[in-house]
Amino acid sequence: MDQSPGGADPLADARRRRADRARQVADVLRRQVLGGTFTGGTLPGESQLAVDFGASRNAVREALDLLRREGLVERVPGVGTVVAAPKYPHGLDHLLGLAEVMRDHGGVTNEVRTTGIITPPGPIAARLGLPAGERVVYIERLRRLAGLPLSLDLTYLALDIGEPLLGEDLVNQDIFGLIERVIGENLGVAEVIIEAINADQHSAAVLESPPRTALLMVERLTHLADGRPVDLEYIRFRGDRLAMRGQMRRDL
Amino acid sequence: MDQSPGGADPLADARRRRADRARQVADVLRRQVLGGTFTGGTLPGESQLAVDFGASRNAVREALDLLRREGLVERVPGVGTVVAAPKYPHGLDHLLGLAEVMRDHGGVTNEVRTTGIITPPGPIAARLGLPAGERVVYIERLRRLAGLPLSLDLTYLALDIGEPLLGEDLVNQDIFGLIERVIGENLGVAEVIIEAINADQHSAAVLESPPRTALLMVERLTHLADGRPVDLEYIRFRGDRLAMRGQMRRDL
Repeated sequence: MDQSPGGADPLADARRRRADRARQVADVLRRQVLGGTFTGGTLPGESQLAVDFGASRNAVREALDLLRREGLVERVPGVGTVVAAPKYPHGLDHLLGLAEVMRDHGGVTNEVRTTGIITPPGPIAARLGLPAGERVVYIERLRRLAGLPLSLDLTYLALDIGEPLLGEDLVNQDIFGLIERVIGENLGVAEVIIEAINADQHSAAVLESPPRTALLMVERLTHLADGRPVDLEYIRFRGDRLAMRGQMRRDL
Repeated sequence: MDQSPGGADPLADARRRRADRARQVADVLRRQVLGGTFTGGTLPGESQLAVDFGASRNAVREALDLLRREGLVERVPGVGTVVAAPKYPHGLDHLLGLAEVMRDHGGVTNEVRTTGIITPPGPIAARLGLPAGERVVYIERLRRLAGLPLSLDLTYLALDIGEPLLGEDLVNQDIFGLIERVIGENLGVAEVIIEAINADQHSAAVLESPPRTALLMVERLTHLADGRPVDLEYIRFRGDRLAMRGQMRRDL
């Protein structure tokens, strides 16, 4: 390759080139791990990877280190590098509840941390199209997939939609499904905003993650089919347990 | 609210309740900051926020601390809490190059770190629908918005699409725009995968971010309008500088 801006320090240049190379290798390996390429969960050895990627063993080792720090792979003495934990796909286009998405990945269960009827802050009321002072239902859940924390969900529901749900089985059921079955309303479109944030200490503890772990932070405002906004959620997904997938179109 | 599972330690319970409350307040304030609610960039004082949110001053202070650690707000002596840096919106539905998206937010410039023709690892070739061993164009760019690093982009292009771009102005132009103008091909659909990861040390340094800063990691495979995959990108967005927005539909 050309145009690698070289500096005056050859050692620093070499380090930089190796780090750049490691990043390229890590990106490809990450996708292979997520895609289930490595049957049995064991990655090829370092020298095989060095051949596959046309990279130095040092660069391969550095790439595996990156993925290990992300929690994606682990080094097992006598075995090599193995896939640590699966990362679950969540579709970006189709609006689904978590339990619907994860049906094939083991059970979703919800630890209901708080439920109640509250007078929300003004901006929450405004997002739900409610006059200031109008009460809403608040539900806070730690959601587990196959036993491990996946997300912490803070949910604000319009009172007429949320109140009948408080007596339902919130441990095993999605709110989307409950709205449709219990309330008998169809859901329409949701507006989502997706960010990456570092977990604060308390959220990290609740999610059983290391401090400052990267979270996929999703705000989702879901409307009924008739356009009325009824369900505002702030969802912190553990970054090491979920990937969102979708399609974008040039001709929109 | 009821159902707050209380433990045996009243002090720990109080801390937990305050942390839960701080998270709720922080989520709303984050959205207001991102939405440009605070004209002049200064947030209301702590006592005003405590009234607005019906929360204790301690919970408000803890919420502001969370946002400060995310880099979203800063405390300025004698002024109060101010918005530190805008976070730019990036649409999830419509496929746009960064410069197209950010047209109204100040100029995007690209620091071209590497360009060249390489034989990619097998999985890259496979994603691009190429036989193993076929060469591709590799372009690595650090992208800046209004001077500050926004993303680090690793791009693999099919040779016939990428090679003519190497002589073009990659500093000021999006690859999408160049493909359409220089190659004369229309773009169609892109498949995207979005994750949150902690930055490795080297990526953090390149992006001028703190160690382990949360990154929005995007893999994007863009197809021509005729369906041929030609542009595979691995993009690390600084989590503190970008939010993705889109719509999801229940009836897909």
